[in-house]
Amino acid sequence: MPINIPETGQKRIVIIGAGFAGLKLARKLKNEDCQLVLIDRNNYHQFQPLFYQVATSGLEPSAISFPLRKVFQKEKNVYIRVTQVTDIDPVKKQIQTAMGYVWYDSLVIATGATTNYFGMKGVIENGIPMKSVSEAVYLRNTLLLNFERAVTMRDPDELQSLLNVVVVGGGPTGVEVCGALAEMKRFVLPKDYPDLNFDLMQITLIEANPHLLHGMSSHSGDRSLVYLKKMGVNVLLDHRVTDYDGKTITLEDGKKLMTETLIWAAGVRGQIPDGVDPQFMTRGNRIKVNRFNQVEGMEGVYAIGDISFMETPKYPNGHPQVAQVALQQAINLGQNYIRKSKGKSPAEFEYEDKGSMATVGRNRAVVDLPFLRFSGAFAWLVWMFVHLMSIVGVKNRMLVFINWLWKYFTFDQSLRLILRPSKKAQERPL
Amino acid sequence: MPINIPETGQKRIVIIGAGFAGLKLARKLKNEDCQLVLIDRNNYHQFQPLFYQVATSGLEPSAISFPLRKVFQKEKNVYIRVTQVTDIDPVKKQIQTAMGYVWYDSLVIATGATTNYFGMKGVIENGIPMKSVSEAVYLRNTLLLNFERAVTMRDPDELQSLLNVVVVGGGPTGVEVCGALAEMKRFVLPKDYPDLNFDLMQITLIEANPHLLHGMSSHSGDRSLVYLKKMGVNVLLDHRVTDYDGKTITLEDGKKLMTETLIWAAGVRGQIPDGVDPQFMTRGNRIKVNRFNQVEGMEGVYAIGDISFMETPKYPNGHPQVAQVALQQAINLGQNYIRKSKGKSPAEFEYEDKGSMATVGRNRAVVDLPFLRFSGAFAWLVWMFVHLMSIVGVKNRMLVFINWLWKYFTFDQSLRLILRPSKKAQERPL
Repeated sequence: MPINIPETGQKRIVIIGAGFAGLKLARKLKNEDCQLVLIDRNNYHQFQPLFYQVATSGLEPSAISFPLRKVFQKEKNVYIRVTQVTDIDPVKKQIQTAMGYVWYDSLVIATGATTNYFGMKGVIENGIPMKSVSEAVYLRNTLLLNFERAVTMRDPDELQSLLNVVVVGGGPTGVEVCGALAEMKRFVLPKDYPDLNFDLMQITLIEANPHLLHGMSSHSGDRSLVYLKKMGVNVLLDHRVTDYDGKTITLEDGKKLMTETLIWAAGVRGQIPDGVDPQFMTRGNRIKVNRFNQVEGMEGVYAIGDISFMETPKYPNGHPQVAQVALQQAINLGQNYIRKSKGKSPAEFEYEDKGSMATVGRNRAVVDLPFLRFSGAFAWLVWMFVHLMSIVGVKNRMLVFINWLWKYFTFDQSLRLILRPSKKAQERPL
Repeated sequence: MPINIPETGQKRIVIIGAGFAGLKLARKLKNEDCQLVLIDRNNYHQFQPLFYQVATSGLEPSAISFPLRKVFQKEKNVYIRVTQVTDIDPVKKQIQTAMGYVWYDSLVIATGATTNYFGMKGVIENGIPMKSVSEAVYLRNTLLLNFERAVTMRDPDELQSLLNVVVVGGGPTGVEVCGALAEMKRFVLPKDYPDLNFDLMQITLIEANPHLLHGMSSHSGDRSLVYLKKMGVNVLLDHRVTDYDGKTITLEDGKKLMTETLIWAAGVRGQIPDGVDPQFMTRGNRIKVNRFNQVEGMEGVYAIGDISFMETPKYPNGHPQVAQVALQQAINLGQNYIRKSKGKSPAEFEYEDKGSMATVGRNRAVVDLPFLRFSGAFAWLVWMFVHLMSIVGVKNRMLVFINWLWKYFTFDQSLRLILRPSKKAQERPL
């Protein structure tokens, strides 16, 4: 059965995924003469850069999630369908979903990336990822529940294990979550749990590279290391995790670390929808595209954002999997569609690196601009401003801003709720 | 093993449940010379009167949930333990929990009430309750997901079934949720789902009594009926549900109603912790107490709030299970403890009915004060003010206020997220 979408006679562009890339493309094309079908498993867009603040009780899930239907309330040519893609048929030019099938003229795969566990079974089972709002909430619940358990723990080893947190992966997510945990440890947890001695709590960051923030400047990597150390985080550079059984982490050199909480932010891999032929995939489980984001060999199929892999002279090993690339590819693809409809030829994608940044904590951030690098309090303000402006929706922006102000002046994150699914949600998952 | 709580030599009062009653009592006694142990399954206090706004996307769960540790951050004699009570031993004067046992000098049972399905198996399985924040979130997810499913539904009967919502129980919760749904239907849903015809959507309220808001004045019952009818809600008074199979509701008179969403707000029953001897229970699954909220026959054991059943000359059939009774019983019990420690004799509980109120929607509420009843826009303002002032925490109060202002001026509820538990949360529930 086809999904119920009116036949308007317009060209139909189906976009799978409403992350940075998919959402941007849909917004870019919403006023063009075409029918847009936006498919996502969730009915909301997730603002990934702030997942770590949800995980550390700094922000509410709703503050960084925005209902897709709200975004396109005024658009008559945008059809949102909340479902899962189960197959792609490039010959018939249609995709199959849990709701039924949809034909397309153009198909844009923008399904992003998911956690890469590098095949380590123990980590898959026992580590905690942070690649969705729901996962961030699960992490928040785990962290808080471990402290509740620690309160009644008499065995010193088990107590230590409950208090310790190990973060694997020294990219922006890993650095940011460590910074936020260190601030919780210092400002919030001792007040909340007067019966626990938080001097015992060890926050450890493990990174396989010899420096943090791989992909940013060495200045930024060094500064973030200094910041984290000042904040009491143990940083293990040049170390690799090989196993984790839920209690003990084993490193490549045989060292062991005890923790009940392993946060896994060590890598991503393309989240390829079911039905894509393996011949189109390349390293990192990404889909190979040409300079126009076309998947060569599948007519009318494109891939943009983290899922796509494009080689250019400037980026012979592909682009970094970051929001800026996703946004720029979406804009370029949208413009090419408009160009084509005007009889013009499409433009090749060229990534313009506008810089990158990471925050470590209060008054501490690092910013790499193309011709300038800086760190400290001003970088932190820039970080906040840029992130605030990138959030979808005036109300969300306002809520995040109020939360940040509140936190800045009270040194408090007041969202420390262990909000578990209801009995019904467990018996009858939706 | 005993739970890890320091032995301070003080009298130990164990309170089970951090609802209105338990929380109030703990706050009342926090500066007294005693050790307070507050036990709850959740690490937060839930503000029940606004669950319906969470369920209808008006408020975020965190806006009406407040972390217990935050409430008692400054108190040295309050010990919070997040766990489940599994047994009570009034002879040894100790309770057993999932964490270990705790001895007590005084035990206060304040576990409140839960949904009463009156033994109807079909309703237990398929109806949706609204007695916790988690249940309210599940209801929100169900409502939104049904609309997403409706979008692709071609069969007219199934479509109708997905759009219909039936609420059972015409008390404040039922009336308020119907009002909120009617406003969603009018102001929000047609914009979000332009492909659906919301004229088809039927909101039905079923009440077994011949009038709404049983327990309030007939003026308020009548006004709320007028309001709901004006807002397009079908109200069936004097009707009883006998079965629901997930698709069809059967009424006592044989009538059938089709809906995929049955919200059950038809009654409550005491939520008695495991280990209370049935001899202490009375009608409505409540624990019988004397005028001092003592459970006669169990030394040092008290019950307050919805779980307690006290007969007084003014209330020979027990008190209504409302927040005001819970708060006043907590205050009286706390004062009696203080009186006792000063060698004074305790005071009998006497409920002072300060009035009750319910809101139906924008500018529409009913208020019963002891010597005055009124309804309309002013009643609505009073309702908002009283609820706002009752919320725990300055920040939550501010957030709720901003949300309400936003909603009032934009006619929008922007929290329409289907935020499901992560895969991990399903595989490894915490």
